[in-house]
Order: sequence, then structure tokens, then C-alpha cells
Amino acid sequence: MVSIDEKDKKILEILKKDSRTPYTEIAEKLKVSEATVRKRIESLREDDVIKKFTIEIDPQSLGYETVTLLGLDVEPKYFLKAVEEIREIDEVLWVAKSTGDHMIMTEIWAEDGDHLSRIMAEKIGEIEGIKDLCPAIILEKIR
Amino acid sequence: MVSIDEKDKKILEILKKDSRTPYTEIAEKLKVSEATVRKRIESLREDDVIKKFTIEIDPQSLGYETVTLLGLDVEPKYFLKAVEEIREIDEVLWVAKSTGDHMIMTEIWAEDGDHLSRIMAEKIGEIEGIKDLCPAIILEKIR
Amino acid sequence: MVSIDEKDKKILEILKKDSRTPYTEIAEKLKVSEATVRKRIESLREDDVIKKFTIEIDPQSLGYETVTLLGLDVEPKYFLKAVEEIREIDEVLWVAKSTGDHMIMTEIWAEDGDHLSRIMAEKIGEIEGIKDLCPAIILEKIR
Amino acid sequence: MVSIDEKDKKILEILKKDSRTPYTEIAEKLKVSEATVRKRIESLREDDVIKKFTIEIDPQSLGYETVTLLGLDVEPKYFLKAVEEIREIDEVLWVAKSTGDHMIMTEIWAEDGDHLSRIMAEKIGEIEGIKDLCPAIILEKIR
Amino acid sequence: MVSIDEKDKKILEILKKDSRTPYTEIAEKLKVSEATVRKRIESLREDDVIKKFTIEIDPQSLGYETVTLLGLDVEPKYFLKAVEEIREIDEVLWVAKSTGDHMIMTEIWAEDGDHLSRIMAEKIGEIEGIKDLCPAIILEKIR
Amino acid sequence: MVSIDEKDKKILEILKKDSRTPYTEIAEKLKVSEATVRKRIESLREDDVIKKFTIEIDPQSLGYETVTLLGLDVEPKYFLKAVEEIREIDEVLWVAKSTGDHMIMTEIWAEDGDHLSRIMAEKIGEIEGIKDLCPAIILEKIR
Amino acid sequence: MVSIDEKDKKILEILKKDSRTPYTEIAEKLKVSEATVRKRIESLREDDVIKKFTIEIDPQSLGYETVTLLGLDVEPKYFLKAVEEIREIDEVLWVAKSTGDHMIMTEIWAEDGDHLSRIMAEKIGEIEGIKDLCPAIILEKIR
Amino acid sequence: MVSIDEKDKKILEILKKDSRTPYTEIAEKLKVSEATVRKRIESLREDDVIKKFTIEIDPQSLGYETVTLLGLDVEPKYFLKAVEEIREIDEVLWVAKSTGDHMIMTEIWAEDGDHLSRIMAEKIGEIEGIKDLCPAIILEKIR
Repeated sequence: MVSIDEKDKKILEILKKDSRTPYTEIAEKLKVSEATVRKRIESLREDDVIKKFTIEIDPQSLGYETVTLLGLDVEPKYFLKAVEEIREIDEVLWVAKSTGDHMIMTEIWAEDGDHLSRIMAEKIGEIEGIKDLCPAIILEKIR
Repeated sequence: MVSIDEKDKKILEILKKDSRTPYTEIAEKLKVSEATVRKRIESLREDDVIKKFTIEIDPQSLGYETVTLLGLDVEPKYFLKAVEEIREIDEVLWVAKSTGDHMIMTEIWAEDGDHLSRIMAEKIGEIEGIKDLCPAIILEKIR
Repeated sequence: MVSIDEKDKKILEILKKDSRTPYTEIAEKLKVSEATVRKRIESLREDDVIKKFTIEIDPQSLGYETVTLLGLDVEPKYFLKAVEEIREIDEVLWVAKSTGDHMIMTEIWAEDGDHLSRIMAEKIGEIEGIKDLCPAIILEKIR
Repeated sequence: MVSIDEKDKKILEILKKDSRTPYTEIAEKLKVSEATVRKRIESLREDDVIKKFTIEIDPQSLGYETVTLLGLDVEPKYFLKAVEEIREIDEVLWVAKSTGDHMIMTEIWAEDGDHLSRIMAEKIGEIEGIKDLCPAIILEKIR
Repeated sequence: MVSIDEKDKKILEILKKDSRTPYTEIAEKLKVSEATVRKRIESLREDDVIKKFTIEIDPQSLGYETVTLLGLDVEPKYFLKAVEEIREIDEVLWVAKSTGDHMIMTEIWAEDGDHLSRIMAEKIGEIEGIKDLCPAIILEKIR
Repeated sequence: MVSIDEKDKKILEILKKDSRTPYTEIAEKLKVSEATVRKRIESLREDDVIKKFTIEIDPQSLGYETVTLLGLDVEPKYFLKAVEEIREIDEVLWVAKSTGDHMIMTEIWAEDGDHLSRIMAEKIGEIEGIKDLCPAIILEKIR
Repeated sequence: MVSIDEKDKKILEILKKDSRTPYTEIAEKLKVSEATVRKRIESLREDDVIKKFTIEIDPQSLGYETVTLLGLDVEPKYFLKAVEEIREIDEVLWVAKSTGDHMIMTEIWAEDGDHLSRIMAEKIGEIEGIKDLCPAIILEKIR
Repeated sequence: MVSIDEKDKKILEILKKDSRTPYTEIAEKLKVSEATVRKRIESLREDDVIKKFTIEIDPQSLGYETVTLLGLDVEPKYFLKAVEEIREIDEVLWVAKSTGDHMIMTEIWAEDGDHLSRIMAEKIGEIEGIKDLCPAIILEKIR
């Protein structure tokens, strides 16, 4: 495990809320120099604590009206391979190896119910070993 | 719905992968001026298509060994209030109003099993109307 | 049980497809007089074989984007009373006493996910004895 | 989405309760001319807001004693094709692409338990990809 | 455990199929005297191996159209008391302490769906600690 | 449906409790002649209202320590055939076509857990189309 | 985490199979002195790698015919307290904080079904917050 | 069943807590001679009441961070063979023939989520007849 101190945690918290916060502003809050902030952030990025700088997009603005948390049942021997294939599908945001009711969980952004039906039948359904799908439509997701 | 064109979609895609990509680099890829890129990004941010500039953090580097997708059963009349209260819990990454087996789904980052137990009993369990919890430990999440 | 013959069944089939079919057209198809058709239809209506003349509406044209088949768990002693109260809710199309996983099933037309959340929390959740809701979003319904 | 005003909604409500309500009566209630009512209804029909004029039949009067809400589990790749084939079965009232426990939901009218058994085994069971059936007998359906 | 030999088992088998089989006929089949048959049967009855001489009734001939296998969820502390109270209900054929999904299973003979609804709401639902009912309609029972 | 009056119901009730009750005793209770009792019982038997005269056996006295209510999942197309094959298994008391979680329910008497395992694997498991078994051990059955 | 080498692992493996294996025999197998074996075992015991020296008992020899893996649903706020109270019950072998369908899992040794019923109703059912029990009878446990 | 008296039970209780308790100490507690203790213990071992002298190991000290209670669904005809094959897997502590939701239950010690995924896919998933896995991560197990 990478060693992380309270200052790093504070930086991560600030960047999580707004990753465009100027380094001078972060430096001021932490009472350190801007150079220190820069160095720490680059360290956190290199150590993969920060996995990426990204944006959070509103699915509905992009025309994705049907956001789904999809549980998948898969024949155990195809488990690892299926996870790899699912992550290659465009509409899949993330895929997780999970425990509980379903060994695979994934989040899908579809334009509407018809689009979701086609993704499930024609993309996910074609993956070897996939036996059953249990889609839960997300009514609203709050961070 | 906000009107979004192919150029906007291209910009969003680039920022999703790396939100620190220099505007000059985006401008070059899209064959537009840097000013256009800047203006479009600010529009997307103002229209809430880009909900925030953020970072993706590795939970394990931060000492969160137990990542959980938690389904919650709640007495229907406390549904909306419970969602509001759950989002205030520190260890909660997001909370969703969902359909299917559980009306509330949430992602929790805990240090270990003992920490998760305490979050479930002492934080979530204290919210009015919460009847049952169905935690699924995430073995690995891939984006 | 009301006694129904093949001619009645034929009439019901025609009216099910289009209840505005002119009696003369039905009469021709059945090779009976228009008066017979009229008399039989009024009999079927009086005997409650035809429960009502109605229209089938497209929920999306009316702005109902989120059609839900909702399973309800209810404390057994409130079962009959809950069914009565659910049928009074405006957004409820029908309510059924059912067997299997849920003792009550109902179809709900909501404008969107947020509207559905509010119907579930503020209307259905307020009915005495309702313990749990299991909403299944209908992606498409074909008759 | 078709543009619909309050007067249209009022007309739809009246026709839903009794689609044989005379236009003069509707006109009076809405304080518009009979011609307006006629024109609006034909518009609503042409725009597919009114999907059809139909009748609601009592299954028991017709000898259908066993009304069933049937959940179907299907191999995902046969999902779309299975829905098409189910809608062709005579005893099927409607079929829906659904989310939650079952990806396909359908309503079946059978004469009795034995008839239902045969529909499930010999008609639905013969459709490719159908893996499991979860029938819920409807004790009473109220509109 | 009572000691039972092969001859006893043969007698039980015969009586299970037809408890009115004459003792002379049983004696002949077993190649023992009629007195021996009589003595053995009385022993089996006294030792409670034969719990009762009874008849098997066809529920439908008696007007019971809706035969149900009902799973009950009960608050654990009311478990034993609830079983006692359920066995006192007229329409209950038998009640079992079970494992698996439901701790109590029972068979109910009702005239129709409406009668079943009333038994569940007004008789079973009134028993202290009963939380949920999961009725499975029996389409046909074969012995 | 066979026409059955109150006297018939009284007779059935008496025979259900003890099918060896002398006709004279029944006659006395019903205030009819012994000949009437005899005639009515034979009618009830011929009309299959009484399906058989039988005995109720205590499974434990016979060495059957493990009584199981077994739910079976079966590929729908093998449903009817599977029911037929299950009823031929010696240890099966009855088999029912059911609704709800499992389309087939059956009661099995096994000597112990090991015997039950072998019945499930070697007898039931060999039937075509059987996919999954859900055994619920009965702790006690009360009539 | 305690540092453990291959020799320690070998010792643990031997003791797991037979904790009465003489140290001389272990020493010989590992090609170390008996003193080394003794020292390592005492270290492993002090570091709590070996949590206890114990025996594995056959439940049936002791008259425990009904071994049960019991899943418990508990109101989340009573979760931690309920676990503590369950471990105090004599018939409980172990209790685990779990994920998946049930937040608490426990193994219970009962003399028979009746004993199990009483443990569930009178001991476990009396613990505050326990809502539902899901007992799975273990037919055979193999190590 | 082996005949066991109160003194035997007392001995078993002591050895369960600490199987290294000196015989002299046990003898003193039971007020019998050391020779009697020795003889009784050897009898209990020979009669397989004591199935083995063993140690209880802390999984985490050994680097097993992910302890799982795994439910398995298996095609019934492969049930017995699958149990045999699962017990041969190194990471499997015990395997049980069970009733309820899953016919096979097993406990698995894995180093982490990735290791568990590979055990499930590559070891258990390769066993013939295994259809579905339902892993429940154990957060803490208390004896």
C-alpha cells in the first residue's frame, strides 16, 4: 500500500470536488507552497492513487434516458472472460466482479427502453456463458 | 434537453479519458480554434452536461479494502427522506433511487469488514424506515 | 356463468379489435341481421361479459415515460383494505390481488423516475400496512 | 411527443370510462361544438394517442377461470425473438419487455389449471431460449 | 422407534391404497391368518404408525376450486404459537414447521380467489406475528 | 360439479376423521337409516368425491426421518412429462403442478439426509429437463 | 500481519490434520530440531495464528441429528448487538457477520426438528431486532 | 448411536476449548483417575465421536483476507459427484450437502478478491454440472 498522509487526503478531497481547482488555491488551504502541491499531485497520479482526471457527465443531457444497474448470471467457468468482454461494450460505464445475488454487476447508459433491450439481447446476450440478466432501472443517482 | 452536436460529444469523450488534456490538443483533434474549445467546454459545464471536473481515486491506495454495493429495503413512506440522509454519510460515494430488488442502491468504501459492519449498524441502521440491508462486496471494479 | 355461443365470441373478438366497427359490418360478417348484432351486444354488456367500452391510450403520447409493474408486500391483515386504497390513486391503471412473490400487483403510469419515486413514497407508502415495493419498469408493452 | 392540451385529456378520460359516450354529451361537458369533439378525437386516433377503441371483457364470463401474470426467464440472446413469438400465442393478452426479476412479463387467460399447464409446456415452452416460468395466478383484477 | 417388519410394511402399503381391503384378502396376499392381520393392524394403530384411517377427498367436487400451498413469514418469537393458531383454521388441511424460504407451510382449500383472499386477510392475517404470505396456487395434485 | 348436500358433507367430515366409523354410528348422528349412509358413501366414492379410503402413516415410525417439501425447476417444455415421471418414484408421496417460485412441488420421505441426497441426484436428477432442486426439510407436520 | 514462513505453514498443516502429532515426528518431517518445532508452535499460538487447540466432534454421536446453517435477517441498527447475543446461545457453534442474502449466518446443532423449532422461537426469536430466519438443514458436512 | 454419558460430555467440552488440557487436570475436574480420562478419550476417538484433534487457524494471519461462504447451484444429476470434487480443492475448508436456496454450501479461504475470482472461475467453474455461484463474503466469524 502507498503511504498517504493527511495532506494528501485533503488534496484528494479538493480534487474530487473540482479537479480544476488552481494549485495556488490548494496551496493556500493546506498552507504549503504551490510546488509542494504540484509534486504531491504528480506523486498521487504516478502511484495510481489518482486513477485518472476525468469529468462526470449527466446521462440525460447526452440523450441517455435509461440508466441501468445490470446484474448478470454467468456460468462460472466463463466468469473472467465475460467480464473482459463486457468492458469492451460502448454503453457500459463500468463492470464489477461482485458477490451476492449476481457475480457480475455493470452500469449501462441507453437512450431508451428499446435501446436497452437491444444492448441486452444483441451485445451482452451474445457473450459466451451469459445465462440471465437482472436489470434495475436507476430513477436518479445522487453524488 | 440541451442541444449537443458531434463536436461536443468528441470533447466530452476526450475529457472523460483525461480532463487535463490541453485545450490546444483538443482543438487540433477537432480542427477548431482553441477559443472554440474553451467556449464549448464552458457551455457544457454551465448547462450541467459536465456535472463536475473530478478525479477517480483507487479505494485500496487510500486504505479502503472493502468496497460494497449495498441494496437497501426501506419502508416506502421513508423512501425519499432516507435517500437524502444516506447521501450525507461520509463513506457513501453515491446513492441511487432504483427499481428491482431494492429501491435504494448505494456504494460504500470501508476500511475492512469491521468498518463496514459499523457503518451499516451505526450510520445506515439509524436512519428511520431502513428495514434490511443486502451488501454485495465488490471484488474488482473495471472502467 | 353466462351462456355464450360462437356468434357471441366472434362479436367480442371484432369489438376487442375495434369497438367502433359498424353493426352493419359485424352483421355481414356473422351473416345475421343488424338487429341481432345490436341485441347480442346489449346482452353481453348487460351480463357484464363486456365490462366496458373503452379506449387504449399510448402512455408516452400523454407524457407518461415511466410505466411500471409494481409488486407490493403488505401486512396480511391490511391486504383487502390496501387494495381498495390503491385503486383510488390516479396514476394506478389497475390493481390485482395476486399470488406468488407479491400479493398485490399494480400498473402505474408516471411522467418520469422522479414522479414514480413520489407516487411510491407519498401515495402508496402512506397506505397502512404497505411494507415493501418492488417496481419493474416496463420497457415496452405489446398487445 | 404529440402536443396535447387539457381539453384532449378531458376527452381521453371520458372515452376511457365509456368510449360510446355520444359526442354531443362530450361537447356539452367541454363547452365546445360537437364538430370540435369529432375533430379532436380523430386527431388523437391518427396521432396514435388513442391506440384503439376496444372493449374490456370479463375473462370468467368467457370461461377463462385462470388468469395469470407470467414472468419468463429467457436466455438473453433470444430475448427479442421470444417476445415476438409470445405475442402470437392466442391466450396471451399482452407481453412486455420488463426489468426486475423477469425480463418478460405476460398475461395469460386459461380455462383452468390444466389448460394453463398445457399453454406453458406446449406453447411457451417450445419457444427457443425460454428457461424458466414463474406464474402468478391473479385472484381478482380491479380497474 | 417402533420395530416394523416386512409384513407390516406390506400391510401398510395395501391399506394406503385402499384401507377398506378385507382382512381375508390381505391375509391371503401375505400368507398369514386373518387373525394375524387383524392383530398387526391394531398394533400399528396403537403404536401410532397408522395415525388414522381416513379418506382422500377431491377438493373440486366439494366446491373448493382454489387449492393453495401457502408459505408464511412470521416473527421468530411468534413461530410456535402461530403454528398452533393456524391449525385451528377450518380451511387449513395441514400446517408444517418447515425450513428454507418459509418457516411455516400450509395447505388451504378455498372456494375461489375471493374466498382465499378473505382467508388470508381475515383469518391468517389476524394471527400475531404473521408478516408476509406467499401463496402458490396448486394447478393439479397427483398421488 | 357433482351435487353435494349438507348430509354428504357431514359424512365426509366423519370419514375424514375416522374412515372406519361404523355406518350405524354415522346413521345415528345424521338421523338417517344405515342404508342411506351406505348408499351415499358409495355414491361419493363412485363420483370420485372420495378419491380413496386410505390411512395416514407416521413417517418416523417407518424409519423415514427426513420428510422434504421439494420445489423443482424444470425446462418448461419438459414440464408435463417430468410431473409424470416424478409420480413414479417410490419415495414421492404426491406431486403437484404449482405456481409461484417452483412449477413442480413434491413431498419426499427419505430415511435420512444421505438417502435424500441420493433420491435427488440419482432419481429426480435423471429426469429430463430438471434443472434445479430446492428442498425444504419439514420439521413437523400437523393435521 | 504476522510474518509466517514455509516451515510454519507446514507445521500448521500437520497440526490441522492431527494436533496430537508428536513434536519429534514434526521435527523429523521438517528436518529441524524438536526445540525449534516447540518454539515455533508456541509463537504461532501466542501470535494468535493458532486460535486454539481443539477437537472436531461428530454431532450425530452426541445426539444432534439436526445440524442447521441459519441465515438471519435483522434490523440493521440491532446488527452488532444481535451477533453478540447469538454467540452466547449454547447450541450455536459459530456466528458470522456476512454479506449477501443474510447479514448474519450461524451454525446450530439441535437434537431434532422440534428442538430446532424451540431454539429458533424461544432463544433466537427473543433477541431484539431479529425479523426473519432462513434455516438450511445440512444433510452432510465433509472436511 | 454411541452411548455417551455426562462425564464424556464434560470431557468433550473441555477438549473443545483446549485439546491440550493435561489429563491430570481433566481427571481432577471430573473427580476420576487419569487412567479413566485417558481410556474415555481414546474410546471417544475410536468411536469417531471425536473426529479429529485439530487446531483452529486465523485465516488473516495466514494471508487469507477473503473468507467466503459459497452457495452453489448444480444440475441435480451431478450433485454427488460435484461435492466429491469440491472437497479436493485446496482452498475449500469444508463442503456440505445442504437444503434451502443452495444444495451445496462451502467455505473458501482466498488471499483477496482476485484470488477468489480465480478459484470460482478456474477451479469450481470447471466442475461438471456447476451452474451458478452465490458467494457471501464473511466479514467476521466468531466462535
